[in-house]
Parts: sequence; C-alpha cells; structure tokens
Amino acid sequence: MPDTDAALLTAQLIRCPSVTPEEGGALVLLENVLSDAGFACKRVDRGGVSNLFARWGDKGHPRTFGFNGHTDVVPVGDAAAWTVDPFGAEIRDGIMFGRGATDMKSGVAAFAAAAVDFVTDTPPDGAVILTITGDEEGDAIDGTTALLDYMDREQEKMSVCLVGEPTCPNEMGDMMKIGRRGSLTAYFTFTGVQGHSAYPHRAKNPLPAMARLMDRMASHVLDEGTAHFDASTLAVVTMDTGNPATNVIPAECRATVNIRFNDAHSGASLTNWMQGLVDAVGADTGVEINMQVKISGESFITPPGPLSDLVAASVKAETGRDPELSTSGGTSDARFVQHHCPVVEFGLVGKTMHKVDENVPVDQIHQLKAIYSRILRDYFG
Amino acid sequence: MPDTDAALLTAQLIRCPSVTPEEGGALVLLENVLSDAGFACKRVDRGGVSNLFARWGDKGHPRTFGFNGHTDVVPVGDAAAWTVDPFGAEIRDGIMFGRGATDMKSGVAAFAAAAVDFVTDTPPDGAVILTITGDEEGDAIDGTTALLDYMDREQEKMSVCLVGEPTCPNEMGDMMKIGRRGSLTAYFTFTGVQGHSAYPHRAKNPLPAMARLMDRMASHVLDEGTAHFDASTLAVVTMDTGNPATNVIPAECRATVNIRFNDAHSGASLTNWMQGLVDAVGADTGVEINMQVKISGESFITPPGPLSDLVAASVKAETGRDPELSTSGGTSDARFVQHHCPVVEFGLVGKTMHKVDENVPVDQIHQLKAIYSRILRDYFG
Ligand SMILES: [Zn+2]
Ligand SMILES: [Zn+2]
Repeated sequence: MPDTDAALLTAQLIRCPSVTPEEGGALVLLENVLSDAGFACKRVDRGGVSNLFARWGDKGHPRTFGFNGHTDVVPVGDAAAWTVDPFGAEIRDGIMFGRGATDMKSGVAAFAAAAVDFVTDTPPDGAVILTITGDEEGDAIDGTTALLDYMDREQEKMSVCLVGEPTCPNEMGDMMKIGRRGSLTAYFTFTGVQGHSAYPHRAKNPLPAMARLMDRMASHVLDEGTAHFDASTLAVVTMDTGNPATNVIPAECRATVNIRFNDAHSGASLTNWMQGLVDAVGADTGVEINMQVKISGESFITPPGPLSDLVAASVKAETGRDPELSTSGGTSDARFVQHHCPVVEFGLVGKTMHKVDENVPVDQIHQLKAIYSRILRDYFG
Repeated sequence: MPDTDAALLTAQLIRCPSVTPEEGGALVLLENVLSDAGFACKRVDRGGVSNLFARWGDKGHPRTFGFNGHTDVVPVGDAAAWTVDPFGAEIRDGIMFGRGATDMKSGVAAFAAAAVDFVTDTPPDGAVILTITGDEEGDAIDGTTALLDYMDREQEKMSVCLVGEPTCPNEMGDMMKIGRRGSLTAYFTFTGVQGHSAYPHRAKNPLPAMARLMDRMASHVLDEGTAHFDASTLAVVTMDTGNPATNVIPAECRATVNIRFNDAHSGASLTNWMQGLVDAVGADTGVEINMQVKISGESFITPPGPLSDLVAASVKAETGRDPELSTSGGTSDARFVQHHCPVVEFGLVGKTMHKVDENVPVDQIHQLKAIYSRILRDYFG
C-alpha cells in the first residue's frame, strides 16, 4: 500500500521557481511522479506556457474524475520582507513557508498524491484525469484553456472536476465554492471642447455627461441576488479631470466602473446595457463617449447536487465541518472548466496567498490529501 | 488753453513698476499732476495698498462727476517672451508697449488729463472726483472699497461714475458696460469609506454622490436671461478622484463648479440653492459633502438712462460708433462703485491686456482723452 508524501511533494514543487510563465521544473517533476504510477502524460504547451495533461484509465470512460490546479505562482514581491527563502520550503514549528505554499502547490501535491495512491492501491473501474497549468496567475489565455482545447480535440472528457484552489476563509473545511461571480471593468472617456468657464456655450463640457452617466449607472439596481448568488454590484471607482484651472472647461474626462455580476447577467448583457446608457447620455449632451470593456470572467454556477454533496461529505468526514457552499470571491480557472463539466472548488485556508511569508501547516497538506482520497473512494465506490 | 499729454502721462505711469500691491511711484505722480491743477488730493492707503482720492470743486456739490481706475498691473509673466522692456513704454510705429498699456494706465492717464484740462480751461459749476486704486488686480479688499469707505466717512459723494477699464472687444468705441454678471466658485469634497470594489456594501463610495450632485447642478436651468443680461451659466470645471486602482473604492473625491450669474440671482441665493441640493444628495447617499463657496462678485446693472446716453453720445461723436450696452465679461471695481452711485464703464480695446507685449496705439490714448473730455463738457454743459 503506497503512501505518497504530499508534504514532501509540496516542498519539492516550492523549490521549483515557477513564477508565471516559468515552468521552473514543477511540471517535469509531476510528470515523472504520475508516469511512474501509470498515468498517460502529455505536455500541452502553448504560447510560451507549460501545461500537463495526465490520465489514468481508459480514454472516454463514462466515470472519469478530474482534478484541476496550477503550479505557477505570483512573484515574490518585496523579497527583503520575507523572513525565509521564498523558494526554500523551509519548515518551522510544523509550518512550511514558500511562494505557492497555499496557492496552490500544496493543493496540486495533495491531489496528485491522492490520485497516485488511489489508482495504485484500488484501481477503479473508471478514469482519473489531472489538468495542471503553468498559467493561472497570468493572463490565463494559454493555460487551462489550452488543456481544455486539447481535450476537445482528443475527445478526452472529465465527468466532473474538482479545482484544488484555496477556498477556506478561516478554518480547514469551512467553505467550498460551487460558482463564482463574473467581473468586468469598463473604461469611459468623455470628449468635448475646451473653453472659458464664463462662456460655456462656446465650449462643450464633458463633465456633465460623465456625471449623468455615472449617476445612472450607480443608481441602477442590477438585481436582488439569485438562488445561489448575492446581488450583483457596480462600483464607480474613478472619475477624473486633471484640470488645474477653475475658470477653464476641460476638453476631456475619464471614469471607470467595476461590476461583479451573478448568473442573472453576462459580460455581453452588461456591455449592452452600458452601451444603451452611453448612447442615451451621448445623444442628450452631444459629448463623445468612448467605452472600453474588459471582461475578466463570466459568472458560473454548479448547482448543489451530487458533486457538491460528494465533496461536502468528505470534508465533513475529515474535518468535522460542513463547508459553506459559496459563490463569493474573485475568479479562478473553474470559469473555464465549467464549460466542460460540472465543477466545484475545495482547498486550503487561503489567508497567506499572494503575501510575504506565504505558508501552510504541514498537517493541513496531509489532511487535504485525505479529503481528496476520500472523494476518489466515494466517487468510484 | 492747456493740453495735458495723455500719451506722455501713460508712458510715465508705465515706467512706474506698480505690480500689485506696489505703488511704484504711479500714485505719487498722479497726485502731483492733479494737485498742480487745483485738485484736493488725499492718499487713502489701507492694508499695505495705496489709493488716491482727488476732488476738484466743492465737497458735496450735487453735480459731481466721478472717474474710477487703477494703476496697479498684473505681473510681467514670462519676461523672456516680451520683445520690449515691460516697464519701458517703448513706442514702435505709433504703438506704445508696456505692462498696463491698456489695463489701464492709459485709461487713468486719459481721464486725469481730460479732467485737468477741463477744470483749468472751463471751470464748471460742479465738482470732479477721481478715485484711483493700487489694488484692482489683487484681492481688491483694500482698493476701491477703501476709497468708498473713506468717502462715506468724509461725506464725499459722486453723482455718477465712469470706470475707465478697457471695454471694447475689437474696435475703439464698439462697447461699453452698464453692468456685470456676478461670479462664484463652489468647491465640494465628498467623503465616504474606502473599500474593495468587489464588496461595495463594506465601503461607502463617495463617487455616486458626486455624480448625482453634479448631474443635478449641470441639468438645472438657472434662468433664460433678464432684460439686460444673458442667461446665467453654470460650469462644472473639475471632478477628481486620483484613484490609481480599479479594484478599490476611494474614500474621497472633489468637484468644482463655477457660476456666472445675472440679476435674477445673488451669491447668497445661489449658495442656498446649492446647499439644498447638497443636503438632498447627502441624505440620499449617506456621503458627507462639504461645500465651500467663494463669491468673487455680485451681479449689478445700471439700467440704460442719462449716464449711458451721455457716454454713448460722446463715443459716437468721437469714433462714429454706437457702443453696444453690454453686461458681459468678468468682474471690475464697478461692482463696488454701484453701491455708491450709478456707474458705467468705457475704455480702450482690451485685446492685449494681461498678455505679453501688452500695447496701445498712441492715437487711441488721445482719442480716449477726447471722449472723456467730451463727456465732461456734456455733463456740465
Ligand atoms: Zn491559485
Ligand atoms: Zn483693469
């Protein structure tokens, strides 16, 4: 009966300096571990980014459990502020330090170790697929998306997928994610004609157009929340003129709006709504209004059901906690996976992610592996 | 029959470097010229500013014609950009150059020369008062106001007053002023609570309050114009946040509004109106809104009548032009004089005032003196 050490594997991964988009040796290491256990591995590199696809069992098996994660990490930041080597995986009082300790080399190590042990010890009637990307923290254009494109081409299919991102706000097991809000940022530029404030009819002031558009947007109630989501939110985050003279009407001003939206909306529907307001205010005021929209991610939901029940039961068995089924927080690669199959997310406590002295208690790595192992047993059991 | 040379006097005044609040020798020079002609002169200095009061004839005479003007000038500005000595009064091709050439040492020289010649040549049954300040371009707190305070104390009284500021936009004689719009600037600070744009309910965003208040102000029609005034205007001139991060709701933002108002309003009535909107938007949004109002001047009007008829007829006789009776432009010391007696303004073409290479055609100085002389003859005739 094998017992792959998830903490040791985490330490090995931390020692690979895989700051996006560097592979840093992390995927090579995982490919070796997984190949040795009988996984068919395929590097799916694209656009300068490294990704690993690994399958144990038959291609196209109707019971295929998937794990998704990333080995790339955000930069060290203020290196002088770290009290340890960010790529040293030093352990102090049972806590392992290093960039990626929680986000999410421990998560990848835990599901890889759980998968290796499970298929070796109790080979299931089914398949296990691991998709591991080196581009989650960056643009994410050639990461999980590249893996899913590869799977489409090769007719590889996961039945369900668990993303191993950190999901717990405070205690191990207190939250899982069954969806995420979408996010977009809209940038507005208002262009008029400069002039003297004593003679506004000779100028065309862009500021009233900005005031009206921002008032209309900020006043609008997008929704009151949906079954599994809080209400969508819209925040006007900037309005600027940069005009030093109170007797001059400026030619231009700029505003920025950030929207976090639930499944009552899409990036496209919100863009259409905003364009309608832009057109109306532009027509009212004669001011030229340019809008640029950057959609960071669409909202998605995997409604409570067999997959979330499976994960929640395992979390409860190993931690004693009933995880909250949440759709809060920012975006993750689950937004890509959701187009492929039902997806939920569960992982460590994320408090130190992206911070100086990022760390993880070694015990929690073992506990996370135990949860993932139980999920596999229950899924195929 | 004396013939005081107004152009020579202008040149002498230009050579006095009387940048506000420096007297620069200008008032001393005028006091000498006027004393020699029999004017009773009194320096009315206050708050570090020099002012000159001069009367020919009996105190309190019911027919007392007044002139008002200033000898202080705005700074040279970009000295290197001048092609002449700004205090040299150099004449090239019949044009005299120097700071104050149009605004308004030529005007002061023209009315002083006209008054001296008139009282010497044809002593009237009446009085002539000249009030000349060294603080028109600055705060104007201790300038014409100090002279008027002095006159109140001493029971000195003008029946009517002509301010010699440049009033003609294009050609000599094309415009006089019978009033001025008022001007105020309102400064708004909106204070909320900073937060993350994904969680706006944990913050209090001041930007929607700014958008709403500025929209309400900019949308409001103050009036459609009055008998002698164009419509009042309101210009939003700044709205600023200075927020570098699109995922952060800022704690504070600021806006500025400039209002040019006619005789349908006062600084107080507009301040009350704005405070009402501030209170309403503050109550709606929970954002703290601070308003600071700076009233630069109230509007005033001397309705068309004997005084404007007198001036217009003289302008027509000397230039062939019927001057437009206007209330346009910024503020002048006429806003103080209007509390004392009927006041109108007539002077040179103001195109180069406050600019590099400020200048005046020498002919126009003589023409201006001729107009002022004719006004005196007709007033007392
Ligand atoms: Zn992550
Ligand atoms: Zn002036």
